Amino acid sequence: MIDRENPEGAIAATAKRVSNWGRWGADDVRGTMNFLTADKRTQGAALVRRGVAFSLSQSFDMNGPQKGWRRRTNPVHTMLDTGTDAAAGIQGFPHGIGGADDVIAMPLQCSTQWDGLGHIFDHGIAWNGRPAGEVVTSLGDAVTGIETVADVIAGRGVLLDVGRVIGTDGELPDGFAITEQHLRASIAAHAVQVGRGDLVLVRTGQLARARRDGWGDYAGGPAPGLSFTTADWLYRTEIAAIATDTWGFEVRPNEFDNAFQPLHQVVIPHIGLFIGEMWDLEALAHDCAEDGIYEFWLTAAPLPVTGAVGSPVNPIAVK
Amino acid sequence: MIDRENPEGAIAATAKRVSNWGRWGADDVRGTMNFLTADKRTQGAALVRRGVAFSLSQSFDMNGPQKGWRRRTNPVHTMLDTGTDAAAGIQGFPHGIGGADDVIAMPLQCSTQWDGLGHIFDHGIAWNGRPAGEVVTSLGDAVTGIETVADVIAGRGVLLDVGRVIGTDGELPDGFAITEQHLRASIAAHAVQVGRGDLVLVRTGQLARARRDGWGDYAGGPAPGLSFTTADWLYRTEIAAIATDTWGFEVRPNEFDNAFQPLHQVVIPHIGLFIGEMWDLEALAHDCAEDGIYEFWLTAAPLPVTGAVGSPVNPIAVK
Amino acid sequence: MIDRENPEGAIAATAKRVSNWGRWGADDVRGTMNFLTADKRTQGAALVRRGVAFSLSQSFDMNGPQKGWRRRTNPVHTMLDTGTDAAAGIQGFPHGIGGADDVIAMPLQCSTQWDGLGHIFDHGIAWNGRPAGEVVTSLGDAVTGIETVADVIAGRGVLLDVGRVIGTDGELPDGFAITEQHLRASIAAHAVQVGRGDLVLVRTGQLARARRDGWGDYAGGPAPGLSFTTADWLYRTEIAAIATDTWGFEVRPNEFDNAFQPLHQVVIPHIGLFIGEMWDLEALAHDCAEDGIYEFWLTAAPLPVTGAVGSPVNPIAVK
Amino acid sequence: MIDRENPEGAIAATAKRVSNWGRWGADDVRGTMNFLTADKRTQGAALVRRGVAFSLSQSFDMNGPQKGWRRRTNPVHTMLDTGTDAAAGIQGFPHGIGGADDVIAMPLQCSTQWDGLGHIFDHGIAWNGRPAGEVVTSLGDAVTGIETVADVIAGRGVLLDVGRVIGTDGELPDGFAITEQHLRASIAAHAVQVGRGDLVLVRTGQLARARRDGWGDYAGGPAPGLSFTTADWLYRTEIAAIATDTWGFEVRPNEFDNAFQPLHQVVIPHIGLFIGEMWDLEALAHDCAEDGIYEFWLTAAPLPVTGAVGSPVNPIAVK
Repeated sequence: MIDRENPEGAIAATAKRVSNWGRWGADDVRGTMNFLTADKRTQGAALVRRGVAFSLSQSFDMNGPQKGWRRRTNPVHTMLDTGTDAAAGIQGFPHGIGGADDVIAMPLQCSTQWDGLGHIFDHGIAWNGRPAGEVVTSLGDAVTGIETVADVIAGRGVLLDVGRVIGTDGELPDGFAITEQHLRASIAAHAVQVGRGDLVLVRTGQLARARRDGWGDYAGGPAPGLSFTTADWLYRTEIAAIATDTWGFEVRPNEFDNAFQPLHQVVIPHIGLFIGEMWDLEALAHDCAEDGIYEFWLTAAPLPVTGAVGSPVNPIAVK
Repeated sequence: MIDRENPEGAIAATAKRVSNWGRWGADDVRGTMNFLTADKRTQGAALVRRGVAFSLSQSFDMNGPQKGWRRRTNPVHTMLDTGTDAAAGIQGFPHGIGGADDVIAMPLQCSTQWDGLGHIFDHGIAWNGRPAGEVVTSLGDAVTGIETVADVIAGRGVLLDVGRVIGTDGELPDGFAITEQHLRASIAAHAVQVGRGDLVLVRTGQLARARRDGWGDYAGGPAPGLSFTTADWLYRTEIAAIATDTWGFEVRPNEFDNAFQPLHQVVIPHIGLFIGEMWDLEALAHDCAEDGIYEFWLTAAPLPVTGAVGSPVNPIAVK
Repeated sequence: MIDRENPEGAIAATAKRVSNWGRWGADDVRGTMNFLTADKRTQGAALVRRGVAFSLSQSFDMNGPQKGWRRRTNPVHTMLDTGTDAAAGIQGFPHGIGGADDVIAMPLQCSTQWDGLGHIFDHGIAWNGRPAGEVVTSLGDAVTGIETVADVIAGRGVLLDVGRVIGTDGELPDGFAITEQHLRASIAAHAVQVGRGDLVLVRTGQLARARRDGWGDYAGGPAPGLSFTTADWLYRTEIAAIATDTWGFEVRPNEFDNAFQPLHQVVIPHIGLFIGEMWDLEALAHDCAEDGIYEFWLTAAPLPVTGAVGSPVNPIAVK
Repeated sequence: MIDRENPEGAIAATAKRVSNWGRWGADDVRGTMNFLTADKRTQGAALVRRGVAFSLSQSFDMNGPQKGWRRRTNPVHTMLDTGTDAAAGIQGFPHGIGGADDVIAMPLQCSTQWDGLGHIFDHGIAWNGRPAGEVVTSLGDAVTGIETVADVIAGRGVLLDVGRVIGTDGELPDGFAITEQHLRASIAAHAVQVGRGDLVLVRTGQLARARRDGWGDYAGGPAPGLSFTTADWLYRTEIAAIATDTWGFEVRPNEFDNAFQPLHQVVIPHIGLFIGEMWDLEALAHDCAEDGIYEFWLTAAPLPVTGAVGSPVNPIAVK
């Protein structure tokens, strides 16, 4: 179906079919987060039964996958004050108080993250049809900065463990393109519904493999991921967001001969969809496999860095 | 009651009364977060009625309150790629895709934050009686790093709007010491309970004042806050955490002649209590004043920076 | 002479008179540094008589003048390893070796610095007539990055202590515009020559005042500095570079009603002149006043950060 | 001669022979830089004949050799303002002025650098016999910070091109230990003198190899370098500093079975010697081979970061 030689044409045709431009008005900055209403939140909270919480975040430290591509490094965490100093009695505070303090320098998309709506453009156009050059300058994203969804992303989460449903030993191989058929099969296998306002998590198993075998090319190399052809499903289901346990959400190498993240080019600027990447779904998936329940309450609050085009996040699922 | 000339004695005596050392075993790294059990979470989730969400985070940007004390700056957010570049067609990607990306450099406690258990020591001793010099070195907190509570902090939240209950026009003046009596009065006024495992938010109104009048000395200057004498209440109630809308949680100037954060010195290393600071409680407090309901579901997931002694956080309250 | 209401016209007219575009070919990236030839260096080295060296750099630390304007902070220096850790024996190295190591995060123009040729544009045009958008993107300055002059800036230095010659108690008041007449008077008073390839240092005395009275608005506020009218002198003398002891090189407030650094707009993109700012000329000026010799050997090597539009520098003068 | 099983004993015995503790008084912070006197500078400046300048600095960018060991990354350079933004007309400045500005985050020893005297300790003792824990805390080096030599390091430079004299095709193999004999042979071959106050540069050729073959393990892996046995020569010659074109100055693997930089442990805390690493000596060495002159005027001014235990540097040699 995919004309491997014409990504630009496929992107344009798909974008036209799935565009949400203007759906929430010309001033909209929240895209598909508009689907995540108060009602959806009330329904989501009702999914908390056992009170067990799962962090879906990888660690933020120098042992991460980044290798410097486009200056994306792993986080550099340094101390401003230490217990060693306090113990040595050289901090100069009164009555025996001592302290430790620290700083971090990191790309906002170095580990578990949200892509904001200002992260990807199509031919110089950002979400809702705005000129990219007027949206994101050196000063940051003046329109759709991640802070605009600071209070939104808490709702019903659904895990689609495609790795377990379709893969071998719970893992999809690198380069495996997850299609709508695979998503539907997973939904059926889990006996769960996916619909408007949901926060959908897709587990491929690649992170489990990286944990076992080393990062290798996890950051930007071959990976399982969503097929370009899922754009229509992503649009039609009216989900609020989707996240994967991979670096780049979509299958890599991509399904065109010379392409770079073509599905991003459709879903972020045209659908207005929020994408999560490098989420750690292992513990949650293990629990879901055990109790057979694949829906839960999910809070994934971005750090409201003003004007950021993405954000680190520690998503918390509660079942 | 407070001997203004003897903070060291008062700290030692209070610490002895309220110590939780060993309560959860010699290896414990979670302190009062042990009170936040799965049961508490289930009860907390039941508080979601309307599905309305509130972010309790200040912005993370150069307009924050930090002035450089002990090298604590406001966050510096810079772009790795911009929409302006994408629009100019100089990014070198195929088929019209363009992107923006960004980095941040910031103290982990520059804005809305959690203090971790490795943040404060008493005479060189950290939480649970460990030598500070063995816990927090230049490599970070090897024992109680904030990542150890990455999956815990979701539960029942309670707002005590002391500013509205006790203050004038909703605000306590700088230097006002909130005592157990004020906390009890607020609890009574709100007709709410506070107990084991709760995440308690105390609003003083100082942030509202800073918004109106400018930051001034918000970072480290005079402020309303908890009295040193509340240590026993903080211990006895068995709450999981407490957060305020001020820089330093406790009243400033402190209640001793020559002191620096004496209540921290008791509650972090001895009670093992998690403290949140610089939380923005304004919108939530307004809503609570309107509907009279001061309890809610609260998720305040720290960013799991390995070995960090604190963390930025975007707490999300849902009512 | 200056039409205070028409900075744009004045800039255009002056730029036309003083333009060096094409002077060193269409590919030139070094501007006035082309004047600093090997011969000039040989002459400069002959000025070393006593062998006394002066650092002309301010300190790089949190006590600097920056206040956050356009995200320019003071340098944040943190430790990766410390002596306290080494003394505590927790570093894990063999045979008793211990170490300390450190990192820095800072704007390249936060303290004593060079402006590179990519730092300032005139109506979107950079040095030598190149489109600014093709020269400096988010990836840095691809053409005139400071690394292109990494091996050039060593030559004859001349100090013009205008503060001592024209000012009161060695200092010019804020807002004082240094004209060609003042420069000539200083040259005469010092009995020194200024010409092709020289590195000219202009002392106003403002830094001495800031040291005495506090930084105040040193970073961006009122200051003595070069008059807009000196552009012709700066062009005609064929100097290689000029540096001052002020934040912004030119007089502030500027000599137009609504203007921002108009002299920069002429001298950097049109003359191709290198400007140094925030240099500490105090010790050198004191020595020159004592021995009456205002020329010396000067090495002011920028840190060759690839693609940087400026650089911190520790200039060393030797007499 | 070297007892491979007893580095600690060898270090102690050598340190005793070569110690300069107290040589310049108990308060000394400059170590061997005391040898670099004004007289030496005058003699050095006289070596400028042709006026040709060489930068001995590698580039500071993401293409450097660092791989994250102990959080040492390559420099991350980001833009605060760009030409792309200026060209798009969105910067908000008057009369057509536009600008670019930038920041950097980097370890101070990530590229061409000086080791300061606070960089290495022997059994918890720093230069001149001071307790390391009192010298270098989380606040930096309070005693021997690199700023203490901000105005010193300009003098006579001597290149010893051991790679060309002893090696094959100008390069020594990894693991090759340069002994006093090799240094003497190079001195003889170059017909140059080395003595008090000199800044000695030793070229191994490893950087040329890394340029050709890729960084590989340049940062911390096997490399040619000075033998542990050269400590006496380094002491006896009374040189002010020594620098190499390698990551670690001394031969790697080291000459003991289980050791880490043992020569550092002697020369920094005991001799008080300044060490330069990762210097780019290629262009200079080529010129020296051509004209047969291996001495020159050298300025290698550290960036005076207050309390830094090392510094990036752009050394400038002029012949």
